Amino acid sequence: MKIIDLTLEIYDGLKSYLSHPPIVIRPESTFENSGHRYVEPCEGFESRFLEMSDHSGTHIDAPLHFIRNSQSTAEMDLTRCYGEAVCLDVTPFKQAKDEVTYDMLEKAVAAQGIEVQQNDIVLIRTRTGQWGEEGFFEEGAFAPSAGDWLIDNQVKCVGLDLANIDTHDNMAREVHMKILPVPIYIIENLVNLDQLPKDKHFTFSALPLKLKNATASPVRAVAIIND
Amino acid sequence: MKIIDLTLEIYDGLKSYLSHPPIVIRPESTFENSGHRYVEPCEGFESRFLEMSDHSGTHIDAPLHFIRNSQSTAEMDLTRCYGEAVCLDVTPFKQAKDEVTYDMLEKAVAAQGIEVQQNDIVLIRTRTGQWGEEGFFEEGAFAPSAGDWLIDNQVKCVGLDLANIDTHDNMAREVHMKILPVPIYIIENLVNLDQLPKDKHFTFSALPLKLKNATASPVRAVAIIND
Repeated sequence: MKIIDLTLEIYDGLKSYLSHPPIVIRPESTFENSGHRYVEPCEGFESRFLEMSDHSGTHIDAPLHFIRNSQSTAEMDLTRCYGEAVCLDVTPFKQAKDEVTYDMLEKAVAAQGIEVQQNDIVLIRTRTGQWGEEGFFEEGAFAPSAGDWLIDNQVKCVGLDLANIDTHDNMAREVHMKILPVPIYIIENLVNLDQLPKDKHFTFSALPLKLKNATASPVRAVAIIND
Repeated sequence: MKIIDLTLEIYDGLKSYLSHPPIVIRPESTFENSGHRYVEPCEGFESRFLEMSDHSGTHIDAPLHFIRNSQSTAEMDLTRCYGEAVCLDVTPFKQAKDEVTYDMLEKAVAAQGIEVQQNDIVLIRTRTGQWGEEGFFEEGAFAPSAGDWLIDNQVKCVGLDLANIDTHDNMAREVHMKILPVPIYIIENLVNLDQLPKDKHFTFSALPLKLKNATASPVRAVAIIND
């Protein structure tokens, strides 16, 4: 078994989306301030205090993010966040400002010779560069037609290597509004999609923390490749 | 495939260990304060701000929690947090104030007729009551000999239904100090262990968030039972 980590590292000061404040990881307990309470060989313990948006880093959106009175994070169906997955690579067909379309996803399926099955998780590689580099937050994301493709193919979850599945200037957030009610869950800020097989299925996991009344959760997203 | 959720729900105000401040989940964006920027049918978006210790709720300890200059959360070996697992039930042999011993774990293996294999993840059910009820934080946890049992059996990760694998008044934190350097990772505050099979292996997952320089991570801990 091999695990491929598809997760952006969360560090103190990271801004993983322009609208949210930077992530904070600061000391809570340290060896210096806790050691006096313990007995050798224990020198005390370290812990950190975390402050972040529920949409920080690599995260999974709950329907409540955009749809009133819908499923929050703790209520999400875990069988839709774990299971058989494929990675579709649209980089041969997309320039930075282009949006991912229905047609591009069809072309990727054909080029890779892979069959997308009902209840698959589909990861979309949209770019060849590094996460967060200049222009990253301005790239074209999914056109509404790409949302239709996800619905037509009855996928249960979609992940991508951008910070937003909707292009930022689409103020109707058409892809979120189309697929979250199904629900098709959305994972944003994936990395390392170039390391995934393009010609076969693998197991994918991105289980949300069990956060009551939250609208998303940071996740550890991984591909599990069985030998 | 069936997923059994072994995770304590995290809610605003929860204290999952006496030493840490209560968890905070508070509004960040709301439909009311963001809606004006969006176009129908989008009514704006909801997000939450999270504030918590890295040891909150059901969490996995990194070696850095107790061992200076050792592995932090982002450096943890994910192949030790996911894989074949067994649940050992010591409740027939343990009263609330008793500590779990080497002998109790041997008795549970024999009573359940299950073989613990090298690199298994081992979950220990120590009690029959509800998480957090009166007396929960005062229960006897692992004796140092139970740590020896984990090392002798070459397990890669251990989980339990208490908030601390060491009994609180053991100020040398002997079990943490014994097993974290191996490393055998420690998952605390599991729930629903009564729902697990006792006579066979299953797949377990408790992947940490990728938190740089952190000493633990809240996790979504689950058992995956294949049909």
